[in-house]
Amino acid sequence: MSYDKDAVRAVLDKARAEGRSSLTAPEGKAVTDAYGIATPKEAVATSADDAVAKAVEIGFPVVLKIVSPEILHKTEAGGVLVGVDSPEAVASGYERIVANARAYNASATITGVQVQQQVGAGQEVIIGATTDDTFGKIVVFGLGGVLVEVLKDVTFRLAPVSREDALSQLDDIKAAAVLHGVRGQEGVDREKLADLITRISDLVTDFPEIAEADLNPVFATSRDAVAADVRIVLDFEARQGPKKFSKDEILGAMNRIFKPRSIAIIGASNETGKIGNSVIKNIVNGGYTGEIYPVNPKSDEVFGRKAYKSISEVPGDVDVAVFAIPAKFVAAAVEEVGKKGVAGAILIPSGFAETGEVELQQQVLDIARKYDVRLLGPNIYGYYYTPENLSATFCTPYDVRGGTALTSQSGGIGMAILGYSRSTKTGVSAIVGVGNKADIDEDDLLTFFGQDENTNAIAMHLEDLKDGRAFVEAAKEIVPKKPIIVLKAGRTSAGAKAASSHTGALAGNDKVYDDILRQAGVVRAPGLNELLEFGRALPVMPAPTGENVVIITGAGGSGVLLSDAVVDNGMSLYEIPPDLDKAFRAFIPPFGAAGNPVDITGGEPPSTYEATIRLGLEDERIHALILGYWHTIVTPPMVFAEVVSKVVEEARAKGIQKPIVASLSGDTEVEAASQYLFERGIVAYPYTTEKPVQVLGAKYRWARAAGLL
Amino acid sequence: MSYDKDAVRAVLDKARAEGRSSLTAPEGKAVTDAYGIATPKEAVATSADDAVAKAVEIGFPVVLKIVSPEILHKTEAGGVLVGVDSPEAVASGYERIVANARAYNASATITGVQVQQQVGAGQEVIIGATTDDTFGKIVVFGLGGVLVEVLKDVTFRLAPVSREDALSQLDDIKAAAVLHGVRGQEGVDREKLADLITRISDLVTDFPEIAEADLNPVFATSRDAVAADVRIVLDFEARQGPKKFSKDEILGAMNRIFKPRSIAIIGASNETGKIGNSVIKNIVNGGYTGEIYPVNPKSDEVFGRKAYKSISEVPGDVDVAVFAIPAKFVAAAVEEVGKKGVAGAILIPSGFAETGEVELQQQVLDIARKYDVRLLGPNIYGYYYTPENLSATFCTPYDVRGGTALTSQSGGIGMAILGYSRSTKTGVSAIVGVGNKADIDEDDLLTFFGQDENTNAIAMHLEDLKDGRAFVEAAKEIVPKKPIIVLKAGRTSAGAKAASSHTGALAGNDKVYDDILRQAGVVRAPGLNELLEFGRALPVMPAPTGENVVIITGAGGSGVLLSDAVVDNGMSLYEIPPDLDKAFRAFIPPFGAAGNPVDITGGEPPSTYEATIRLGLEDERIHALILGYWHTIVTPPMVFAEVVSKVVEEARAKGIQKPIVASLSGDTEVEAASQYLFERGIVAYPYTTEKPVQVLGAKYRWARAAGLL
Repeated sequence: MSYDKDAVRAVLDKARAEGRSSLTAPEGKAVTDAYGIATPKEAVATSADDAVAKAVEIGFPVVLKIVSPEILHKTEAGGVLVGVDSPEAVASGYERIVANARAYNASATITGVQVQQQVGAGQEVIIGATTDDTFGKIVVFGLGGVLVEVLKDVTFRLAPVSREDALSQLDDIKAAAVLHGVRGQEGVDREKLADLITRISDLVTDFPEIAEADLNPVFATSRDAVAADVRIVLDFEARQGPKKFSKDEILGAMNRIFKPRSIAIIGASNETGKIGNSVIKNIVNGGYTGEIYPVNPKSDEVFGRKAYKSISEVPGDVDVAVFAIPAKFVAAAVEEVGKKGVAGAILIPSGFAETGEVELQQQVLDIARKYDVRLLGPNIYGYYYTPENLSATFCTPYDVRGGTALTSQSGGIGMAILGYSRSTKTGVSAIVGVGNKADIDEDDLLTFFGQDENTNAIAMHLEDLKDGRAFVEAAKEIVPKKPIIVLKAGRTSAGAKAASSHTGALAGNDKVYDDILRQAGVVRAPGLNELLEFGRALPVMPAPTGENVVIITGAGGSGVLLSDAVVDNGMSLYEIPPDLDKAFRAFIPPFGAAGNPVDITGGEPPSTYEATIRLGLEDERIHALILGYWHTIVTPPMVFAEVVSKVVEEARAKGIQKPIVASLSGDTEVEAASQYLFERGIVAYPYTTEKPVQVLGAKYRWARAAGLL
Repeated sequence: MSYDKDAVRAVLDKARAEGRSSLTAPEGKAVTDAYGIATPKEAVATSADDAVAKAVEIGFPVVLKIVSPEILHKTEAGGVLVGVDSPEAVASGYERIVANARAYNASATITGVQVQQQVGAGQEVIIGATTDDTFGKIVVFGLGGVLVEVLKDVTFRLAPVSREDALSQLDDIKAAAVLHGVRGQEGVDREKLADLITRISDLVTDFPEIAEADLNPVFATSRDAVAADVRIVLDFEARQGPKKFSKDEILGAMNRIFKPRSIAIIGASNETGKIGNSVIKNIVNGGYTGEIYPVNPKSDEVFGRKAYKSISEVPGDVDVAVFAIPAKFVAAAVEEVGKKGVAGAILIPSGFAETGEVELQQQVLDIARKYDVRLLGPNIYGYYYTPENLSATFCTPYDVRGGTALTSQSGGIGMAILGYSRSTKTGVSAIVGVGNKADIDEDDLLTFFGQDENTNAIAMHLEDLKDGRAFVEAAKEIVPKKPIIVLKAGRTSAGAKAASSHTGALAGNDKVYDDILRQAGVVRAPGLNELLEFGRALPVMPAPTGENVVIITGAGGSGVLLSDAVVDNGMSLYEIPPDLDKAFRAFIPPFGAAGNPVDITGGEPPSTYEATIRLGLEDERIHALILGYWHTIVTPPMVFAEVVSKVVEEARAKGIQKPIVASLSGDTEVEAASQYLFERGIVAYPYTTEKPVQVLGAKYRWARAAGLL
């Protein structure tokens, strides 16, 4: 689209020169005109005939308003007529309000009569752009009017938006059906609305000093979309974002941090109970095979290894320095590791921004920047990277390798990740604490894990994003390859308040996070348990290649609850065609239920589970299976688990890869059976019909975002 | 309110006589008039002056319509004027439409001009009543208009509704704020709207043959509420509900069933693998101490006990007969147990309605009714009642006594209840399968458990209710004494479809269930896991006496997530007053976060947890505590668990009873610590911040419904 940027520049320059942060109505009109944003058409007529001609050009109905510098209160003067809907009415109306005005103030100069397009018909919507602390320029669309103001039915996108983005916003509000037309009403012109959204998006993108631009209300009909009011707020103070690194710079540092050839432990100690003791013990006992250099000015030997007074005395190159010294000594030590050419300083110590020591943290960061040292933390438990047997932490080693990389902003949540992983034998590639995020943040980690051959799913707990835009850019590149799961804490205003008192982090409006992360293809976990379950389950499941979900259940009662869960999690049950239904029926008792769920009934032997599950796997029209198991004497839990595993393995041998989840109802043996299945790539849970389906739903959300469906 | 019931009766009798199931517009008007339901005022004027007088009486604006038997198309004849808003306009309008009508049809008889109140201003709402298969007469209220039709913002109540019920409906819709007035608009007259709801409710209550009565739209302003359109549908076919028993009758039978002095097992068998073998084994091995009579025509002795050919040969009285014989033999056996005077027949066999054998099931029920035998089932796993060491089931015995009674409609779900209970050591009073519910259903069980001294919480899985009204009546009586938790399967249309193919049960509109169960004070569990967790946790927690919830956390990150969960679960964080804040601060490091959550920070010793939790328990302004634990070397999990248990026990010794829940983040030791806490009445979970708060929220929902807050 071609815009008159010079016109906008002139308006903004004038406002800046006059020290204003808002625009007048005519200035606003000039800006919207320059960007082709439709506002009500208007013209000044100087005779009744002229008014008629202009009204015909504008289109009926019109509003007539007296134009006179002396008459400020036009309505009081009888100088306004609304709903004027014919040439005759315009002609007589012109004469009438001029007469009214003369009667009101005989000495007033009558410049003419303004003829204005009357808006107000059609659907009221709001279109706007604002500047978010996390994401920068964002665009909002929602229904306008009283009802929707109450229901807050709006949706956000990162600016600039494409036409497709803008069109997607129209479908993203709860009351989207209204825009399509309901109860016989005409729908709106979707292209016109999308056009308006892209224009406002381009405006704030071209002119970052436009902090807010609101078109509210916009009246949308089947023919046009007209902004009845425009409000523009300016902010000439440029915000300084965090330092940007190139992808190569990030990967250069991250590869040395996650796959170090050598590690120094600053403050390594022989004294049990000290962090410096736990860290070296975990690195050594965890099985790390690179060089380990204890640094401690007071010891000659730590944990059976030669200790160095300072890192500068270490003979070879050092990739990583893990800090286990009090906060007050960190700055000086970072100076030394910087001189040594260390890639990453892992700052376990607390006592920085989280305790109010913001300046100390900044000082450490400034030193790190000077030497190109990347900082992880401070205020963290450390990090794990299982492919290198690396447990650089004061917690305990973890060695179950797998595809999930987990990160947490909070140490407490990090400990939950560790305990949960150990308890469920979750295979992880990495567990990383980011703490105060003085430097390394989620974008850096995403960039590394995105290309890491040992990672096939990324699960992140975060309370804020330092640079939402960088995160979205990284996520968009990675999502087609592997799922990204995010638990954003501080969703609610109470949570956000707690978040900002915790880390001084600014938690943005949650709806902004929700819409923009979803657009980036991120799977959002509603809570900690889901972060952990999604993180554990998604990497072990094959991706679905279509939307046809089938439930096969031994327990009719589970079938009902599983069906509820399918709908709750944004999937739908495949309507099984007659031939396939017949094929299923061949295996199940005559009173087994038809259709989907396939209810094989409770008393069936393993062979019925086997036959129906095999059919579900081999029929190409079915894309995912949900199994409902009912513990009976005829098919005990482990027998079920073994049968399912066997059928699935056979199918995989034939190249059939489908996601399968299972809900196991029964006595306590179902726990071992669920674990057995999970370890064989069938995501199974005991005593819950919701969790397996929720996990499958998460896989589907990712698969759709990755463009696989 | 006084209604003209005779007028309604006359209208309905006429419609019935004419074989109609709907009313004409004048009949509808007669009905609404008889029940004082405001419709647009109208009158016929025969002169311009008369029209002006009538318009003044009705209030402006008015609509004028020609009245002439010959003129059917009034608008075409120029015989309609809308928005007539002054006496002058009425006078001239009268003359104008009479003239138009004469011009249109010179020979037409002009009876006069109808002057009608013009409605359309104000808020559009819908008020109606309908007949629900589960609940009978129910009343609906919602916002009207296009937007809300799309958003389906409606709320239901059981008819008849009180004024308070009706007023509560106004606050129960999502867009409730609109009714209070927003953006400077006036709110509606709430009393007038509530009055309209009660009138429609009384109408359908007084005349059950009115199947549906819709006032749509109703225009509500700050002055009145006028129904612009009325639609009434009749159904003269009286529906036959299930047989009603008195409370005494129910308890008489239920006490004999749950506390039997003697049990016969029809089909008791020595053959391992047979249900009749499992049942007697479980009853004996479960420790039941009453008389046990095996009945088996082919054996003299079963499981070491004398067996009888028929129950008629059993020497003493028999309270319960457990059936372990094929379906085809059940009817004859019920006849025999009926003659023997058995109170309850426990019908384990399947092969009845669930496999299409509806008539067989009805035949068995008819026989049971003849002898006043109550039936449990058929198609069930049996039932457990731990206070009597009774495991009358083919599953395995369960002996962990406690206050939770659990019931399930589905056998699969029953098995999940058993396995979960055993795994978590949940203390239960009873586990009951209701299966096909040929006779005994949830109302009967509610009535028993409601007065059972061994039960202090009731958790029910159900797919339908045979008699929703009886359930609500029983629930309303019990909820003030103990919580009722319900998992209603078939919430979604997919789930409901699966439900009806499963049991032939008609699953009602879920919103109807949701609103009416909530009004009855029932705590609804969103899924199976919540049914189990709420059932396990609610009985062990003291009830809160106020709404002031405080989070005390060692992990700031958990504090944020716990805060989110507090809001998600309908609670709010107490704004801690300065003196209390100061008292907390005395125990925590200076950089610990102020306010609520109380963030004691991660590195603190057990004494900090102890001091802050004690303060939280002892300060009378705090009503509930949520604890966030972070695993550290300084305060390991079991140390935390012991400290918390000690503080809570001390407080209880002083008579302080507050609900406390805990989220434990840490390595796997937090699992044992959580179990330790749970067993001491502190509801604790590892690796989740949501579950403990969700459980506390459920306790609050119950406490509010029970009138404790």
